[in-house]
Amino acid sequence: MAQVDQRQAAATLEGSETTTMRALVYHIAADGSTSYAWSERPRPRIQQADDAIVRIVTSTICGTDLHILKGDVPSVADGRILGHEGVGVVEDVGAGVTEFRPGDKVIISCITSCSKCDFCKRGMLSHCKHGGWILGNLIDGTQAEYVRIPYADGSLYRVPEGRDEDALVMLSDTLPTAFECGVLNGQIRPGDTVAIVGAGPIGVAALLTAQLFSPSRIFVIDMDENRLATAGRLGATDVVNSAGGNAGERILQLTDGRGVDVAIEAVGVPASVELCQAIIGAGGRIANIGVHGKPVTLHLESLWDRNITLTTRLVDTVTLPTLLKLVDAESWRWRHSSRTALISAI
Amino acid sequence: MAQVDQRQAAATLEGSETTTMRALVYHIAADGSTSYAWSERPRPRIQQADDAIVRIVTSTICGTDLHILKGDVPSVADGRILGHEGVGVVEDVGAGVTEFRPGDKVIISCITSCSKCDFCKRGMLSHCKHGGWILGNLIDGTQAEYVRIPYADGSLYRVPEGRDEDALVMLSDTLPTAFECGVLNGQIRPGDTVAIVGAGPIGVAALLTAQLFSPSRIFVIDMDENRLATAGRLGATDVVNSAGGNAGERILQLTDGRGVDVAIEAVGVPASVELCQAIIGAGGRIANIGVHGKPVTLHLESLWDRNITLTTRLVDTVTLPTLLKLVDAESWRWRHSSRTALISAI
Repeated sequence: MAQVDQRQAAATLEGSETTTMRALVYHIAADGSTSYAWSERPRPRIQQADDAIVRIVTSTICGTDLHILKGDVPSVADGRILGHEGVGVVEDVGAGVTEFRPGDKVIISCITSCSKCDFCKRGMLSHCKHGGWILGNLIDGTQAEYVRIPYADGSLYRVPEGRDEDALVMLSDTLPTAFECGVLNGQIRPGDTVAIVGAGPIGVAALLTAQLFSPSRIFVIDMDENRLATAGRLGATDVVNSAGGNAGERILQLTDGRGVDVAIEAVGVPASVELCQAIIGAGGRIANIGVHGKPVTLHLESLWDRNITLTTRLVDTVTLPTLLKLVDAESWRWRHSSRTALISAI
Repeated sequence: MAQVDQRQAAATLEGSETTTMRALVYHIAADGSTSYAWSERPRPRIQQADDAIVRIVTSTICGTDLHILKGDVPSVADGRILGHEGVGVVEDVGAGVTEFRPGDKVIISCITSCSKCDFCKRGMLSHCKHGGWILGNLIDGTQAEYVRIPYADGSLYRVPEGRDEDALVMLSDTLPTAFECGVLNGQIRPGDTVAIVGAGPIGVAALLTAQLFSPSRIFVIDMDENRLATAGRLGATDVVNSAGGNAGERILQLTDGRGVDVAIEAVGVPASVELCQAIIGAGGRIANIGVHGKPVTLHLESLWDRNITLTTRLVDTVTLPTLLKLVDAESWRWRHSSRTALISAI
């Protein structure tokens, strides 16, 4: 770390005041221990014709950042600027950028998309051959004053005039992740019974977006009474505290033994995947959102004939424009409350 | 068993010659050991208005029957006549049956459907509240000269004139199971790469019906060279012998490291589910057909961000009419070969 600081100091001395910036930098020590620190770093510059430089107005942290800090994500190198979510203002663009100009207010997608590879063409931007989740992972991220966004035309979204830029940072990752990996993969239909396991920001975002499809009941399960109270305010029809360990039985009671049509896993530990399997009804869908570090047990001995579907997904952020329209719509109930709700759930 | 035989003998003495029949009967001895034997049993009679009595022309055995004989299916009681597949002729109908008359040639679905419950109404006949898989399980089955079919209007399908009744027994279970649980749940699309793990009758039926959707390549994996040779004749573009244990690596080589779009599990053991997970590409679908007696390991630590779908299903036999049309179509390549193929794969 001392070495890094010296290099940063040298960069500061060499350039003018405007060529450096503050950034949150991840460090791996010689003994493998990890840390992070605010540091002075050179401002990013256009490297490729498709690049944009964005001045960050708002960023936020993700559960994945916590995984990085635990050393769980080996692809993140020492010296990396963290962060993959942000709202900002375009500062500069490369010669190949056609959709954005300096001064444009933008949401930065957590997924970088080249728009040209097979995966991008079929809407699976998460697995873009040249992008995907690279910000704050393989390249420097958004927890800084400035960030370089490769493939800017495919990776930035314009902020409509007069919108609360601060709240829109939830569209970088949180809301699309909950919506795509949880609600859309869970194929929620009107009248369905839905269980959301985990009432953190992602679980709450799933709760908010699940209501777009008018399920008849939404059960939210968590161990924290404050989170459950938030879930109750935001549309959960029933909340279940799983601290006692009998959440599965309770959900089966609440569904007259049938189990739920959709179970959304919004935690990322084996126990919550097991709970989803215990409460899923015949013909039901289990939609995994959680980031998992361990294998889990799949009970095919009881599920092989239950006509269930289990899905996994890294967010593609293809619904970002849709969510932007919904946030924009006067009529949508969570227009004013989504950011407050998500923050209160953290 | 001695007691049962005495009862049967008494029944034979009481009735005329035409009131008894030969049937394959499952027995559980006092020590729990299981066996089966051809016995004389009373012919079934109409019990409910929805019933039909069918004289069996052809029946067959299923892997599930073998599970029963191993004692793996506790719902099957001592004295049960086995079998859930068959083609026959309607002998008698109850007052409530409107779609069939004595003399009609019929395919018996392995799934009995009341046509009236919530599950039947949404096409999930497998989980019919009053039926489902009951033949040769909860009520006497088709491995007999006569069988009583409850809810006959929902559970029988007319055999078109002039068709090979003997071959059509494959529509009772084998072909719908492979098609619905494997091919349809796997959502095979034109150009997809497909791997079928297991080349028994169900795997071969999946191979035959997968071709309806024009995949670009079909890899069939088995440990038996004879089965693989059959698969090669019936449309597999590549066959892989998994006896050496490196089938997963071979499939990855054959797909340039991308893995397959669809992996169909047609065995029913943990190793084959693990193989499907090892070869599935980003965005791919794993469709389980196998009957499982044990939990399996789900590698969410590597699959959570791979946008995969895993499905299970007990056949609904809702595609039986569709398959009947296809078998009927002059142009369809497996019209003449399907039964031969399936039998040679056993």
